[in-house]
Amino acid sequence: MSAALEHVSGFDDEVSRDGIFSMKWDVASGELPMWVADMDFRTAPAIREALAKRVENGTFGYTDVPAEFMRAVAQWWGRQYGMDVDPAHVTFVSGVVPAISSLVRSLTNVAEKVVIQPPVYNIFTNSIVNNGRRVLTNPLKYEHGRYAIDFDDLEEKLADPLARLMIVCNPHNPTGNVWSREDLAHIGELCAKHDVTVVSDEIHCDVIRPGMTHTPFAAASETNRRISVTCSSPSKAFNTAGLHSAYFFADDAGLRARAVRGVNTDEVAEPNDFAVQTLIAAYTDGADWLRRLNAVVQRNKDYAAEQLAAHAAGLTPAPSDATYLLWIDCSRLLDEAGDTTAERFCDYLREHTGLALSYGGIYGVNGERFVRMNLGTRADLVVDGVGRLIAGARDYVGHR
Amino acid sequence: MSAALEHVSGFDDEVSRDGIFSMKWDVASGELPMWVADMDFRTAPAIREALAKRVENGTFGYTDVPAEFMRAVAQWWGRQYGMDVDPAHVTFVSGVVPAISSLVRSLTNVAEKVVIQPPVYNIFTNSIVNNGRRVLTNPLKYEHGRYAIDFDDLEEKLADPLARLMIVCNPHNPTGNVWSREDLAHIGELCAKHDVTVVSDEIHCDVIRPGMTHTPFAAASETNRRISVTCSSPSKAFNTAGLHSAYFFADDAGLRARAVRGVNTDEVAEPNDFAVQTLIAAYTDGADWLRRLNAVVQRNKDYAAEQLAAHAAGLTPAPSDATYLLWIDCSRLLDEAGDTTAERFCDYLREHTGLALSYGGIYGVNGERFVRMNLGTRADLVVDGVGRLIAGARDYVGHR
Repeated sequence: MSAALEHVSGFDDEVSRDGIFSMKWDVASGELPMWVADMDFRTAPAIREALAKRVENGTFGYTDVPAEFMRAVAQWWGRQYGMDVDPAHVTFVSGVVPAISSLVRSLTNVAEKVVIQPPVYNIFTNSIVNNGRRVLTNPLKYEHGRYAIDFDDLEEKLADPLARLMIVCNPHNPTGNVWSREDLAHIGELCAKHDVTVVSDEIHCDVIRPGMTHTPFAAASETNRRISVTCSSPSKAFNTAGLHSAYFFADDAGLRARAVRGVNTDEVAEPNDFAVQTLIAAYTDGADWLRRLNAVVQRNKDYAAEQLAAHAAGLTPAPSDATYLLWIDCSRLLDEAGDTTAERFCDYLREHTGLALSYGGIYGVNGERFVRMNLGTRADLVVDGVGRLIAGARDYVGHR
Repeated sequence: MSAALEHVSGFDDEVSRDGIFSMKWDVASGELPMWVADMDFRTAPAIREALAKRVENGTFGYTDVPAEFMRAVAQWWGRQYGMDVDPAHVTFVSGVVPAISSLVRSLTNVAEKVVIQPPVYNIFTNSIVNNGRRVLTNPLKYEHGRYAIDFDDLEEKLADPLARLMIVCNPHNPTGNVWSREDLAHIGELCAKHDVTVVSDEIHCDVIRPGMTHTPFAAASETNRRISVTCSSPSKAFNTAGLHSAYFFADDAGLRARAVRGVNTDEVAEPNDFAVQTLIAAYTDGADWLRRLNAVVQRNKDYAAEQLAAHAAGLTPAPSDATYLLWIDCSRLLDEAGDTTAERFCDYLREHTGLALSYGGIYGVNGERFVRMNLGTRADLVVDGVGRLIAGARDYVGHR
């Protein structure tokens, strides 16, 4: 359990999270938070320089979204994913979640239904339900330790006349699935057939297994491009969730007009004084840093998977090709302990080892027997966290 | 017209607005923008230090709103305005406008009416109309060059069964009125009588004539306190509009619960990584800087008023006790030129002198014969702007 991880400079150095009111690190002394999805790494030097320069100016009035912002987004999607994004089709928004909440309001009516694929990012449900819309679930299939889309069930759900919108999570949080072009085109075809608009949340797309590539939903087919709004941000990959810089793009003029009108009415379309600089720096000068980040994340995930395989037979991570999150099937452990869900195991881990993970049940149907572990942190904390998890799993069964 | 203004260090130094995508300074070379309401001053040193320190940390994940934030708000209102604000009644929000839009949604139903007092900050109308509510106007009286509230008309408007909310602007933008305790209590009494909730926008409260004091709406009477939500921010006084740090407070538990629920659903309740630090620094260490700012603003307003009185008989500023904005009655000039509104004069000023002001008509009923001039800038630009205005006014009449 104390296998060493090769030190990577710029990532494995100690960075204080004290005094910054970090949500993730709002834990007791000695506790190790591997829950809230931000990372413990300093962001890319180009971003830090841009922010320092902005502070130096000293005036903090209203900021426009300049053409450079939209161009930086278009260039990023072109270079990274070979996708042709028209800068004129890009709209700034203060975050992907605010965008999704707003899109739910502008693209559906009260009481209509929005399709999601659990286990999936829990806030989708809030964005739907808090706005008086209803959730329609198309649960992912989990067979032989792999997740896949249940297309028969999906078509059935999309055929509901009240289904108006589908939120695709690409890549998928928390499972780490990178959806194939075929899967995405198939979703698009079914949605088009039933006149359902797609919002594709691609916030995790840049954090991906080295050697693999992300397929944007809108790039999978002409139909997909026509019926979708894509939301993304540098926030996950560059650890800038607190800088509130995100965007969406949509090719269809009518869809785009409703979406743009919505985010303006909802007051989430104006940048703070650091948001524009953050994205431009990330997307212009951040590609090399991102490559190094992805190697570190993969190192961490591989380490955790190996250690769990060797020392925690009851815990089985789902194969993950994206995100810095590990989605761990606790079924065997729970069976041994006589539990039906992982909730008590989660509580036990925190109480007895100080390790704070996210309980899988919050991600909806079929998440109840899982935990989500955030590995976006430096080597010594990865080793510490995996060690606490293994020790906790061992003691838990004895304890029950 | 070239009267010198005494140089004040820290305020009258040249500060570049280049390269920061400033909305205010998005003008052609040689143009002088005195429109968008932010200032050209560097913010208080304590805020700049707090921001620089936050950048230094290098990680930019999710931020909590700590108890220190709510305490700083309560202490500020206590020290500055002698008002007892319970920290537990304070809620962070990303801006006063997002708060007002959200409050319109959470405190009224579609098609209901919201009372405002034009000429008034034009975005109130957007927040009402874009959310499917209707504007009910209680125009201010403008008699003998002074603005006052028309209480007979107000009571008539509040008696409309569809009137559910009133937005008070205290101090008043653009007129610069600092409402008296009696006026505020009278508004509250009438609103309570007709079961109308009050949202008081107090964003300009800290920028006030030296020697005067602001009376918070909620402090004017027990009734006022019970029926109101107060919105404010350090953004106007400390020139931090782009840092997205604001708040509201409400004493009534039911009102507060609806308001808090609303800003969360509307996704405007989460701080960026600089917002918390900005407010704490401003409200803990900014009082001395603010005193100096207010002296500079008063100097600028006095200078402009004197120069206009001496050299532009057609332009009469309303007496202004708050804000760094001057609300200038152009009636005599327009009469002489044969115009009914100041719109063409505004266009002429920009085209022929490069001075960009806000046309008063955008502030609604009775604003059409006014222009709004932003004097939150350094001495040489005040002299320059006032000079352009005087020259423009002189040439305009000849030109027509």
